[in-house]
Formats: sequence, C-alpha cells, structure tokens
Amino acid sequence: MKLVRYGEAGHEKPGLVDAQGRIRDLSAVVPDIAGASLSAQSLERLRSLDPSDLPLAPAGQRIGPCVGRVGNFVAIGLNYADHAAETGAPIPAEPIVFNKAPSCIVGPNDDVILPRGSRKTDWEVELAIVIGERASYVGANEALDFVAGYCICNDVSEREFQLERGGTWTKGKGCPTFGPLGPWLVTRDEIPDPHGLDMWLDVNGERMQTGSTKTMIFNVPQIVSYVSHFMILEPGDVITTGTPPGVGMGMKPPRFLKPGDVMSLGIAGLGEQRQRVIAFEERAPDTSHPVRERSASV
Amino acid sequence: MKLVRYGEAGHEKPGLVDAQGRIRDLSAVVPDIAGASLSAQSLERLRSLDPSDLPLAPAGQRIGPCVGRVGNFVAIGLNYADHAAETGAPIPAEPIVFNKAPSCIVGPNDDVILPRGSRKTDWEVELAIVIGERASYVGANEALDFVAGYCICNDVSEREFQLERGGTWTKGKGCPTFGPLGPWLVTRDEIPDPHGLDMWLDVNGERMQTGSTKTMIFNVPQIVSYVSHFMILEPGDVITTGTPPGVGMGMKPPRFLKPGDVMSLGIAGLGEQRQRVIAFEERAPDTSHPVRERSASV
Repeated sequence: MKLVRYGEAGHEKPGLVDAQGRIRDLSAVVPDIAGASLSAQSLERLRSLDPSDLPLAPAGQRIGPCVGRVGNFVAIGLNYADHAAETGAPIPAEPIVFNKAPSCIVGPNDDVILPRGSRKTDWEVELAIVIGERASYVGANEALDFVAGYCICNDVSEREFQLERGGTWTKGKGCPTFGPLGPWLVTRDEIPDPHGLDMWLDVNGERMQTGSTKTMIFNVPQIVSYVSHFMILEPGDVITTGTPPGVGMGMKPPRFLKPGDVMSLGIAGLGEQRQRVIAFEERAPDTSHPVRERSASV
Repeated sequence: MKLVRYGEAGHEKPGLVDAQGRIRDLSAVVPDIAGASLSAQSLERLRSLDPSDLPLAPAGQRIGPCVGRVGNFVAIGLNYADHAAETGAPIPAEPIVFNKAPSCIVGPNDDVILPRGSRKTDWEVELAIVIGERASYVGANEALDFVAGYCICNDVSEREFQLERGGTWTKGKGCPTFGPLGPWLVTRDEIPDPHGLDMWLDVNGERMQTGSTKTMIFNVPQIVSYVSHFMILEPGDVITTGTPPGVGMGMKPPRFLKPGDVMSLGIAGLGEQRQRVIAFEERAPDTSHPVRERSASV
C-alpha cells in the first residue's frame, strides 16, 4: 500500500495510490497519515478498503511529505561502508545517531532552499523508516513489528554548518527544506526485504550516487532496536538510515549545490523525488503560517 | 502568568496558577498549553481573564510537563563559563547545539528512570526557553518577541551514552524521563531579565549546583537568534540553555545517580522540581500508550 499526503503545504490531505497510480482521498477514513493512523491495526483497516470506493483526488495536486506531524526526525550517520570510506571516516563501531529538525520536512518535489550564507549544501539519498508503534527497548528480532513502512529521504546537509561550526551535526542537517520525504509511505508488507533496494541520485541529470541498501553497515532491524534503547520511538517518528557513496563533499574537488541545480533521486519500489535548488533570496514567503521573518544575521 | 498542565500523564489539562497558588482550569479556554496557544495573541487573551471566574482544579493533581506536544527539544551545551571549565572543555566560540528526544519529556516531579545498563546518569539544572511564535532568521534584538516564556528543565544526561558510544551527544540526552519540564511555564512578562536568576540543584538534600543565569556565555536572545539561523523554531519548541557548575561528571571522583536518590532543583521565579531516581527494573508499566516493550539488548 502506498500512502500519500497531497495538497497545499500545511494543509495536506491523506490519500492512497490506487492500482492505476491515481490518488484516492482518505480524508473520510483517517485524519492524516500520521501518529495513530500508522499503527498496524489502522494500516490493516486501510488495506481492507476497496480503493475504487474512495473519491479520486483532483489531478495536479502538490505531493506533500508522506508523514505528518513527525515528532522526532532521527538520522543515522556514515551507515554505508563505501560512503564512510569516501568521507575518510572509520567504519563506526555503533550506529552514529543525530537529529534533523522536524521543521525541515517538505514534500518530495518542493524547492530546496540554500540557507543564508551557505557555501556547502550537499545531497544524500536515503532509505527512511517510518515508525508505526511506540518502541522502547525492542530487540532486533522484533523491531520490524514497530515499522509502518518506508520512504525516500533526501538528507540535505550543509557541510560547513555540520562540521565547521562547533558541536554536533545538528546545525547542518535541519535547515528549512532540508528534509524532503516521499512521495509515498510504502507499507512494510510491500517491501519484504529493505536490504536489497537500488538507489540513485542525479544532479542536473548527471548520476552522482549509485548504491544499494545492501551495503548498509547496520540494517533496519538493528537500527530500530538500537535507537529504541536510547529513546522512546513514537508512531510517526522517522529514522533516515544513511547514504551510499557519491555525495558532493566526497568528490575531488568537492562539489556543492548552487541555485538552479535540480536533484532527482529514487529508491526501487519507493518512487522518485525531484527538487529544484533555489537561493535563499529566491524563496517564496511562507503563507502557511504566520511568520515574522526579518533581516538579521548572527 | 504561570501556566501549568495537570492530570494523568498523556491526559493533562491546561491551567493557570492564581494569586493564591491554586490551579485554575483553562480547558474551556484553550485545548492545551501547546502550539498556537503560546502565541502572543493567545497569551494576551489568557492574561485578560479573571482567574476567579475559572473553575478550580481538584486538589492533589499530578503536575505534568508545562508544555505539550513539543515539536523540537533543542539544547545548548557548555553554555556556562564555569561549567565549561569544570568539564575541561574550552569556552565554545559559537553555541553548541544538540537535541533531546521530545519523548523524554515528563512532569517536574515524575520519577527519573535510570536507563538499562546506565552507570553514569547525571543532573543538570537549566533555564528552558519556550517558543511562542514561529522564528526563522530572527535577530537577537527582536528574538524575545518569539519567546512565550521560561521554565525549569532538568537536562538529565547519561555521560557514557553521551560521550563514549560514538557520534553526537543524542544517545545520552533523550532517554525516557530525561526531560522534566516545569512546574510552570512562566510567561516572559514576569521575567523581565532572564539573565539574573539564581539556580540550584540538590541531591538527597546536599547542594550540588549553585549558579546564576548571569554566567551564561550566550544569552537568551543570542541563543534564539542563533538557533533560528539553522532551523525554523515552531511554537511549543523548547530550547534548554545549559547548566552551571556542579554536575556529577565534574566531581573528583565523579558522582552519578543511583536508585533512591532524590533530585530537587529550582530557579528563582520559576518554581521547583523534585524527582525520585529509580532503577530501570522499578519503572511502572506505561499505561498511557499501547507499549510493546519486551526484553532485549543491543
């Protein structure tokens, strides 16, 4: 089952993708693709519906992030043996855990904004895990029971903010628009083996990343189990699981995103994303929330 | 104005503390002390109420965390010159930013659970900032406009998980119950100067931390401004701002929490907290959520 959220930013409706690839409106069934709607019981109920009984969504809708109200956006660093090598880092003995600000989450095809003053914004195609049930101290052997499904995450990263501004990686990982999620939340039953999925990322049509989830150092059950030993995972939390080789920082010389670049990326079975990169000055005013954003620097 | 959330965990009601120190029920006025209820406009409306018109809450209620649905729980590290010195770390050139999992948030007097396998759980009394308005790229000169108020946070930390398990500090900062918040959210108008507040923490009645927010390296407006340049801050987000000297890790020899210890802590004008420390095995089953927690280790 492919679950989707569509409509204007901040006002997305829940939907599912039917056999013909059309979006069917789930508004009358669940309030959102979020929280308790991701439980095994809720997903079973959605699975029992006949999509043809559901209204078709209007054509041409924006696709939003495939999970709403993400309470914790956790990320695993250096989780591909070949990517760790390209960054010059040793293979981690335990998963490296950091956070992306949930406020960075956007739709799979929304613009990615270069932060003000950014010189080193980079791409990372990743398999993201969507938590369906509250998980605390779960074993790897049972960890998949707590997973609702999977989606693509572009773990957009500002390398100077991440690595050269002191402290942890947080500063370079949660800038506005740095978390495209989707297009779909593909439920776990459709991805019987999350460890054999081809993945890729292009910039302006040029292949940058080619990989497979089979080279992950820590696999999906290990990651869910591990993280659950340090924090409670709630339904709707997202864990993005690291990127294969081919990031801009690893190139010689390094290559970073500039305004006008287009990223396209995909993972087998999980669909594709496409983001235009825009300058900070080009961004649209945020109309979905009352923002008081003014000129300032630190 | 002192805002409070009271009642069973996961089912707290909003309230305010009247001039006699009694809790008045705000359920008929706002859905929760959270999100949009923290805007300047909403707080102005609450301030205009006559508390004696509001029903009294039943006596003897549990006090919950003073903010609900925290979307991002941000923390600043090594932000007191004297605390940085005791840990042997240099004074940071820029604020150190890390995350606590929002799922670690508990009431100010709830038990603190030692994580399974913990040997180095430590205390940290801190001033926490509660965001009231969406903030992105705001200047220090206007940053307080985006602050709803302040509360006490005990930034409970497992030092081995934080510092010896690889990666960022995340692993030792977000364990279940590691984020007592409250008792009250004291609105900004009641704390005209957040940089002259005495603060203290006792373990079993013995004074461990004595400090004042006046020794903060980066002050409240600087912190809000700085963080807003790396991520969008949303209403209900919490930023805890670092701890003064006297943590267990800094003692010679180091001293850590053990089952049966009692932490009490306070900040002038913001009230007091009191937590009993319990062993992992002593914790009560979580009845507020459907948990499937079983025996497992990583």
